[in-house]
This record gives sequence, C-alpha cells and structure tokens, in this order.
Amino acid sequence: MDVIQAIRDRRSINFFEPGRDISAQTMRDLLELANLAPSSMNLQPWRVIVVNDPERKKALRQCAFDQPKVEEASAVLIMIADPRAVEENIDQVLESWVRLGYIKPEAVDMYRGLAGKLYGTGDSLTRNFFAVKNTSLYAMNVMIAAKGLGLETHPMDGFDEGAVKKAFSIPGDKIVPMLLAIGYLKSGFTPLPRAYRRNFEDFVTMNSYR
Amino acid sequence: MDVIQAIRDRRSINFFEPGRDISAQTMRDLLELANLAPSSMNLQPWRVIVVNDPERKKALRQCAFDQPKVEEASAVLIMIADPRAVEENIDQVLESWVRLGYIKPEAVDMYRGLAGKLYGTGDSLTRNFFAVKNTSLYAMNVMIAAKGLGLETHPMDGFDEGAVKKAFSIPGDKIVPMLLAIGYLKSGFTPLPRAYRRNFEDFVTMNSYR
Repeated sequence: MDVIQAIRDRRSINFFEPGRDISAQTMRDLLELANLAPSSMNLQPWRVIVVNDPERKKALRQCAFDQPKVEEASAVLIMIADPRAVEENIDQVLESWVRLGYIKPEAVDMYRGLAGKLYGTGDSLTRNFFAVKNTSLYAMNVMIAAKGLGLETHPMDGFDEGAVKKAFSIPGDKIVPMLLAIGYLKSGFTPLPRAYRRNFEDFVTMNSYR
Repeated sequence: MDVIQAIRDRRSINFFEPGRDISAQTMRDLLELANLAPSSMNLQPWRVIVVNDPERKKALRQCAFDQPKVEEASAVLIMIADPRAVEENIDQVLESWVRLGYIKPEAVDMYRGLAGKLYGTGDSLTRNFFAVKNTSLYAMNVMIAAKGLGLETHPMDGFDEGAVKKAFSIPGDKIVPMLLAIGYLKSGFTPLPRAYRRNFEDFVTMNSYR
C-alpha cells in the first residue's frame, strides 16, 4: 500500500471483526517495524503489553469503561512509557554510536551527561514528558505500519490508568499514555465520514506564531 | 512509495542539501496530510510554525545549540503543543460529531464533560500530557508523510525551549515538544548504518508486564 494512501485511509475504528486473531508472526513484524521510530537520543522509552488472551481482554475491558472494542479487537496493546529508559538504555545507545562511527569514544561521557541534562535524572516532570512524547511517536508508527499489514487500529484514552497498572502488574513509575486496539475491520461495516479537521491556516503559521 | 518501505527507510538525517527550498504547495500538502493523525477526542492540540526564512532560521539556530542543520534544512518546523485545545476545539468537534451521526445531540453535554474530566480543565499536568502526546502523534505522521513526498526529517530535542518561545512569540502556556528539521538529503551523502534497536523480547510481553 502506498504511504500517502495509508495515511489518508487510516481511521480510528470502533468495530472490529470479533474472534479473528492476528498471528504471532504478524504481531512481531508489526511491532518490530514500528520500533524503527526515532526517539530522543535513540533511548526508545516504550514498552508494549500485547493483550490477546480472552480472559485478559475481559479484565482490560473492565479498566476501560466497559468498551466492547477491547474484547472485539484481535488484541489491545497497552502502550507503556518508561521514564527510566534514560539510565537503562543509554549505555547500549552510546556503545552503538561509537561502534558505528556516529561519535568518538572520548565523546561518550559528554553525551551521557547531555542525556541526563535533557531528559532528567530524577523522577521529574522532564523525564515523564520525554517518555510520553517518544512512546507517542512509536504508537503513531504502529498505526501506520498496521495499515500496511491490512490491520485497523484505535488509540484509546478512555481507561483508568491506575486500574490498568494494577491488573497488568505495571510498576508505578511507568506511564500508560494510551491503549491501542488492533484488529480487522468488522465485515460489512463502513466507517462514518471522517470527522472535522482544522484548515491549514488554523494551525500553521510562517516564521512566527502569528 | 510503499508504506512498509517508508517506515523502514525513514532515518533522522543530519545533512540536508543547503539552499534547496520546499515549495509552498508541497509544505501545505505535507502538513495537511499529516493532519489526518488521530487525537484524543479529535481535539488536535497541535500548531506548527514553519521556519523557512533565512534570517529566522539563523535566529532559531541560536536557540538550538548552534546546530548547522537548522540552517541547512529547507525548513524547521516548530511543533507546538497547545493545552488550551480542550476548550478551544471541543465545540467544533462535537458539532461535527452530531452532524456526521457519530453521537446524538443529547449526548453533547456528556462528551463536553468527559473531555474536561479526561484532559483537565485548569493549567494542569493532565492537559500538558494530553497536548504533548497528541502533538507527537502528529509529528510522527509528518515524518512518514515526508518520506512519501521525497523529503527527509530530523526530530530535534536539542534546543532551549524558553529561547524558542521568546524568539517566535509563542505564548507561555504552550509547550514545544520538538523541532523538526525537514528538507532534501545532501547530495553525495550516505547515512551511517542505523543505530541499535532493542530486540522484540526486550520491549514486548504478552498479557502481562513480565
């Protein structure tokens, strides 16, 4: 599928074909492909729980205001933003950069310091924003990649984050910026026309805010 | 270009062809196409300043640790997350939903209340996360759409947010989650091999965090 067409045709789908699975290989292809998303200093502060077990989908639905699509979709991805990625992934990033010739070995300490400066060294707001921002880049990449694999998605905000963390044993310092329902369009279902988008002039300006 | 290929081939480019412009029509096509990104309750809390004037690029470079790509890229997009989109856009969203048959007129008040509940009604953390999350979805859509239009991009964190807001008259309540350099690959330049990505097992689990 053409990339322009994929972006144009992507819709947030409420009606998935119930009982239709996504194969383990397709799920792996999808999540690995989307994992080529860029991230701040390549720190990749995202994790995913793929919820496809019927009982676990039922449990997740209870955390998501009882929305039927949680059970009807083939799977729901719990998108997790991990503020601790700054310290957990920085060594592997810097080792890769040196090995591939991005930076010289003597620059490693400077870049480690910069990561701490830009993305925070404590449990601060800065690092939470860093984690949510980059996990959202990843999530959008998943949605577009899904179109390329014949799948439909729906990013969901309507859930109780504390309940999801408790039900799925997610540590308290992580953030769940969204759930992402994924599956196949329900047969015979045609989505309503696209909802409103602002005009270009309403959200773009040239060289200044106004 | 195939969508899978576009995601695979997208790289964060440091070397753009200097002096090469993006036409006004191409920029419009790009930003409008990406504007089909989903957002929380369709509130679209993003704005973009396209910086392509040579003097304004020079000014922006001074806010971005003097990085040459700010001037070498055809343009740099200042991505702005607007927490006030909750109240500014909700009426148009709900009007569109009623007109297109998404919801019944009697549900409008409930959804307006829900938007306030989910995304915050004051200058709170909740609404800032809402704005950054959705602006990041938009930014990723821009990066993929750019590939489809033959353009390269680089999302940038290395800038002084306060300085950017001052230099470009951006109101204090807005957030600038990233700059996005955009242009054409410098002729004769071949990017280094892709830096490290985690293995599937390192960031994905099935049905539970562990």
